[in-house]
Amino acid sequence: MTEEDIIKFDTADPLAAHRRHFELPADTIYLNGNSLGPLSTASKHRVREVIESQWGNDLISSWNKHQWIDLPLTVGEKISPLIGAASGQVLCCDSVSVNLFKLLAAALTNRKSEHAVILSQQDNFPSDLYIAEGLINLLRENGISAELRLVDAENLEEAIAQSPDILLLTHVNFRTGEVHNMQRLTALAHDHDIQVIWDLSHSAGAIEVALDDCQVDYAVGCGYKFLNGGPGAPAFLYVASRHQANLEHPLQGWMGHRQPFEFKSNYVPDEGINQLQAGTPGILSMSALDAALSCFEGITADQLREKSLALSEIFLSRIEGDSTCKALILVSPREARLRGAQLSFSHSDAYPISQALIEAGVIVDFRAPNLLRLGFSPLFLSFSEVAKGASILKHIISEGLFRNERFSIRAKVT
Amino acid sequence: MTEEDIIKFDTADPLAAHRRHFELPADTIYLNGNSLGPLSTASKHRVREVIESQWGNDLISSWNKHQWIDLPLTVGEKISPLIGAASGQVLCCDSVSVNLFKLLAAALTNRKSEHAVILSQQDNFPSDLYIAEGLINLLRENGISAELRLVDAENLEEAIAQSPDILLLTHVNFRTGEVHNMQRLTALAHDHDIQVIWDLSHSAGAIEVALDDCQVDYAVGCGYKFLNGGPGAPAFLYVASRHQANLEHPLQGWMGHRQPFEFKSNYVPDEGINQLQAGTPGILSMSALDAALSCFEGITADQLREKSLALSEIFLSRIEGDSTCKALILVSPREARLRGAQLSFSHSDAYPISQALIEAGVIVDFRAPNLLRLGFSPLFLSFSEVAKGASILKHIISEGLFRNERFSIRAKVT
Repeated sequence: MTEEDIIKFDTADPLAAHRRHFELPADTIYLNGNSLGPLSTASKHRVREVIESQWGNDLISSWNKHQWIDLPLTVGEKISPLIGAASGQVLCCDSVSVNLFKLLAAALTNRKSEHAVILSQQDNFPSDLYIAEGLINLLRENGISAELRLVDAENLEEAIAQSPDILLLTHVNFRTGEVHNMQRLTALAHDHDIQVIWDLSHSAGAIEVALDDCQVDYAVGCGYKFLNGGPGAPAFLYVASRHQANLEHPLQGWMGHRQPFEFKSNYVPDEGINQLQAGTPGILSMSALDAALSCFEGITADQLREKSLALSEIFLSRIEGDSTCKALILVSPREARLRGAQLSFSHSDAYPISQALIEAGVIVDFRAPNLLRLGFSPLFLSFSEVAKGASILKHIISEGLFRNERFSIRAKVT
Repeated sequence: MTEEDIIKFDTADPLAAHRRHFELPADTIYLNGNSLGPLSTASKHRVREVIESQWGNDLISSWNKHQWIDLPLTVGEKISPLIGAASGQVLCCDSVSVNLFKLLAAALTNRKSEHAVILSQQDNFPSDLYIAEGLINLLRENGISAELRLVDAENLEEAIAQSPDILLLTHVNFRTGEVHNMQRLTALAHDHDIQVIWDLSHSAGAIEVALDDCQVDYAVGCGYKFLNGGPGAPAFLYVASRHQANLEHPLQGWMGHRQPFEFKSNYVPDEGINQLQAGTPGILSMSALDAALSCFEGITADQLREKSLALSEIFLSRIEGDSTCKALILVSPREARLRGAQLSFSHSDAYPISQALIEAGVIVDFRAPNLLRLGFSPLFLSFSEVAKGASILKHIISEGLFRNERFSIRAKVT
């Protein structure tokens, strides 16, 4: 593929104009939107407005005057179309971990037998497993029999056939980018009367998700990756309408109460998805996410998916067959439709290579023990950038530029 | 007391200079810092820096470069001196409700008998009760015997003598401002082998708290009231050092793991207070709180306490004995040391009076069914303002200015 071909891709890209919504630093190719999405101009202006005018001048009255109180619901509504959810099923609140705890506990109230089994994948995102383990420990300490059963991806269907109570999976694997067949696995689980919780942290804003069509029961997802909500942005959760009338979750804080400002001493859950709120929402962080979501207006999840796969294919086409990149092993599925908006490569020098890339302005990340992870955010990346990023990677490897002492020191967060 | 006397108070006020740290709107007397603290210049500048320079330019590298990853601990350390806690016992994270759930669950692992009893006060802040109820429901549904026992303040000591497992109290009552004797109640509880959790939401930053001296076991508190951290600022929690080695709580997210970036599938809690983290912290909101705490530098909790009580006494001296204010009944303790940094009055027209005050620039709040609630934040209020606020209240009542149709419509959040 020639440089001219690449330019043609950019010229024909229907999302190209969206790049201007983001404030990316000069000389940076940001292949890390899967970890922390970049700042949008909308978020910058919005938080300034929320702080200086709303908080600063209107103070407490802003809860009504500027609809702070409605943000968890309004942000949830904006996320809905990106994950295939009809209105009234998505709420923005807390973190992925806290939201997952609510949903796991809610799902457990419907368990089939005395001994509750949560089935998940061995290499699911660890925090999801820790939370499941935490809930199970709490029950076990109190004399309840419960179990977290972990299997490899290839043994999932067999384990589903053993009919656990809950299936907890992440749609796109954080290490490899491998994407699960949500339709098939959800249907299979339902055949065995299993409730399904999907973690969409690496899906929302990057690949098409059809929660309603797949009849998913519950889902959680992250606000700070492909949704560009800012560092530690609040997360979201989804509860299918059919489960909302008989839902019980233990993190029942006042914001999920039907009449929080009546200050009654007993809890009466609000109707609908709002009953999943717990404490007071973090308005500054949630406002940044709310504004960032405006960058998705007029774009379909299909368009996002198509572009991000095309970006990653351009990247691969530059690396594949290059003799200097032989030691760089693709661990993501080679077939595009089987992976999310990321490519992961293993390499024995993955850490110093990641550092050399970053120094050269190509921002990627490293995942222990030996993974180089690159995200292809479709909203702000151009085909030319991605091609250039691949060329820089090849140059760093072929010239051995990563063999430098200063690239070998591991920082705390990598 | 004459106007001259009031001016003398302001002139002699050692905290007077701190007013300049806050960006209060003109012609506003803000008696609502107990509900939402005002914007500080430090918070405004800090969030702008975090968004535009750190997130915008340094992107993912900011987790290390700008120590985002350390914020829960560093903010916790800044809160410590305000609540009488030595280093290593306070963490900033999540909401009060979520943090309370963690601590209640942790304390329950040490319960004395099969049937766990959490004792609290009937008019405790409702969200605290909802969370206790939520945890108990979760256990009950799973066949565990547990109970939330609610009593009136006057029956607390008798109920403590019945030796429940956990005593859960809010230090300063959100309705009346009545302050509990933390030293006495904690000691009494310990005599009966009861673990004690204090909610400091209306205490931190306003009145002296001596957690270590009182040998308190656990505490939670709010970041957006007297600490001025911004709308929905993250909360904090305290776990006494002696409990940290054998702590177990169910919300064990990756940020509380000993090595979160090793991505191990099993959970190993971090050492110390950091094991109480759950998901990724909200950096924008937490940064605003971090900066706001700088306004407390060089000030002791005793100074805060002394000034806030003096402010409220000035207010009372203007109202008391005034024949037009007869229907305004003080529900806060008349004895200063028995109340927090607030005054609450009942009045059959409390709602329209609150609205008339707000229109006149005196920001107060209303709590159902008939309470007018005024906060006396010592960091930014002057004695002259407070005296003027009292005069405006008297004028509104004596002239019947609250008898106006537009003041009678209840907004959603009040």
